[in-house]
Amino acid sequence: MKTLKVIKIGGNIIDDDEVLEGFLKEFSKLEGPKILVHGGGKLATKLANKMNIEVKMTNGRRITNSDTLDIITMVYAGKINKTIVAKLQENQCNSIGFSGADGNTIISVKRPIKEIDYGFVGDVIKVNTKIVNLLLQNTVTPVFCAITHNESGQLLNTNADTIASELAIGFTKDYKTELYYCFEKNGVLQDLNDDASVIENINTETCKSLIEQNIIVDGMLPKLNNCFHAINNNVHKVHIGKSNMLFTETSHTIIQA
Amino acid sequence: MKTLKVIKIGGNIIDDDEVLEGFLKEFSKLEGPKILVHGGGKLATKLANKMNIEVKMTNGRRITNSDTLDIITMVYAGKINKTIVAKLQENQCNSIGFSGADGNTIISVKRPIKEIDYGFVGDVIKVNTKIVNLLLQNTVTPVFCAITHNESGQLLNTNADTIASELAIGFTKDYKTELYYCFEKNGVLQDLNDDASVIENINTETCKSLIEQNIIVDGMLPKLNNCFHAINNNVHKVHIGKSNMLFTETSHTIIQA
Repeated sequence: MKTLKVIKIGGNIIDDDEVLEGFLKEFSKLEGPKILVHGGGKLATKLANKMNIEVKMTNGRRITNSDTLDIITMVYAGKINKTIVAKLQENQCNSIGFSGADGNTIISVKRPIKEIDYGFVGDVIKVNTKIVNLLLQNTVTPVFCAITHNESGQLLNTNADTIASELAIGFTKDYKTELYYCFEKNGVLQDLNDDASVIENINTETCKSLIEQNIIVDGMLPKLNNCFHAINNNVHKVHIGKSNMLFTETSHTIIQA
Repeated sequence: MKTLKVIKIGGNIIDDDEVLEGFLKEFSKLEGPKILVHGGGKLATKLANKMNIEVKMTNGRRITNSDTLDIITMVYAGKINKTIVAKLQENQCNSIGFSGADGNTIISVKRPIKEIDYGFVGDVIKVNTKIVNLLLQNTVTPVFCAITHNESGQLLNTNADTIASELAIGFTKDYKTELYYCFEKNGVLQDLNDDASVIENINTETCKSLIEQNIIVDGMLPKLNNCFHAINNNVHKVHIGKSNMLFTETSHTIIQA
C-alpha cells in the first residue's frame, strides 16, 4: 500500500504571506500522494470586523450564524483556498481546492442543539473518497478548507483538525495514511515553556498518564482526541509539530497505537 | 463524439435565491456531460460597499485593484461557487467548484496597460482539459467561477462569457461542444422592446448585416464576438436566450458558422 500524507496547517502559517509561501514551496516538493487541509487563521475575524458583523461567542466558542457562515465561506473557500491553489500551481504542484461539498466528499450533520446552539456547525458523518482518490492517482493534490455540507444544500462550518483526521481515516482503505498536524510548537511538550522538551512518542497508555499528570491540558486535549480517534480507526501514525517536521529530520511528537 | 454542454449563467439567475434554486434543480436533470460557468451578479458590489471599498470605474468599466480582486475571489470562488455546488449535491448532481487555477485549467495573462490599466484582469491564453475531462468521464459536473491565474501565483478576474467560450473551444478536441449563454432575454432581438422578436438563426453573414443595420448594438456586440470566436474555433453551436431554452423547446437564438 502506498503512503498518503494528510497535512493540516493553521493560523501560524496562513496568517503570514511569507511563511505561507515558504511552506507551499517545500510542500510542493513532497513526494507521493498528499492532501492539504487549512484552517482559517485570523482573516475571517478581520473581515467580520470590517463588515461590522458581530462575532458571537458562548463559553469562549464562536457561534456560526448565517452571516458568519457567509464570511467563513468567502474567506476559507474563496480567498485562502484559491490563494493556496494558485501558489501551488506556481510551484508546479497541480492542485484543486475542495470544500466538503465538492465531489460530495465530506458529509456532516448540523450539530444538535443542547445547552449551546452552535449554529451552522457540522459534525462529520461520512467521507466519500472516490473522486479525491481519482485525482490523487493523477498526481493532483486536493486542498481542503474547513467547510462541509449536509447533502441537503446546507454548507456547515467544521473544525479543520477534524476534517484532517476524518480524511485520513476515510483513506485507510486505499492507502497507509499518515496525519500531520502542523502548529506553532515543536510537538506535545513536557514543559509548555521549554520548546526543547518534546515528548517524542505517545501511545494510548502514555497519553492517559500525561493527562493524569496535567501535562496534556487545554487546547491540546481536543487535538489529542482527534489523534487517537484517527489512530483507533487505522490511521498509521499521527505527527504533531512545526511544519519543518515534514521536510527535515526534526524532533516532534509521533502518536501511534 | 459525445456532446458537451457548456452553460453560462449570470446575474438574472444568481441574484435571486429562488430562481437559482429552480434553475439548479432543472440543470441537475440535464443528461450528458455538462459544465456550468457563473458570473458574479450584484453580490461583489454589495460586499465592496459594506466594506467601504471604492469601486473604481474607467470609461464605464470596473478596475480590479488588489482589494477588488480579494472581494471577487471571496464572492465568486467562495460564496457563490460553494452555494451552487452544495445545491447541486442536494439535487444528486455531483459537482466540483473550479477557478481557472484549480487543476491549472485556465491560464491567462494580466491585461497589458494601454490607455487604461484594468488592474488584475486576465486574458485567457490556454485551457488544459485533462483533469476536468477526467471528472466529466466520472459524471462529475465542474462549476467554474470567473477567475483565472497566470501560473505564477497571481489570480486574475476574467469575464465569465469568455471563460465559457474558451472552455467550449478547449474541449472541441474531446467533444462536440455546444455553448449556452443564459441571460434575461429570449435571444438576440430584432426589436429590443419586443421579447417575441427573436432572431432564431445567425451566421457570420447575417451577423454582419445585423450590425450594419444597428440591430446588434451595445452589450450584445461583445457577446456576439465571443460567440463567433467560439464558432470559428470548432464549437458546434452557440445558443443565446433565457435558461428555459435548456429544458424545453423555446424560441431562442442559435449561432452557427
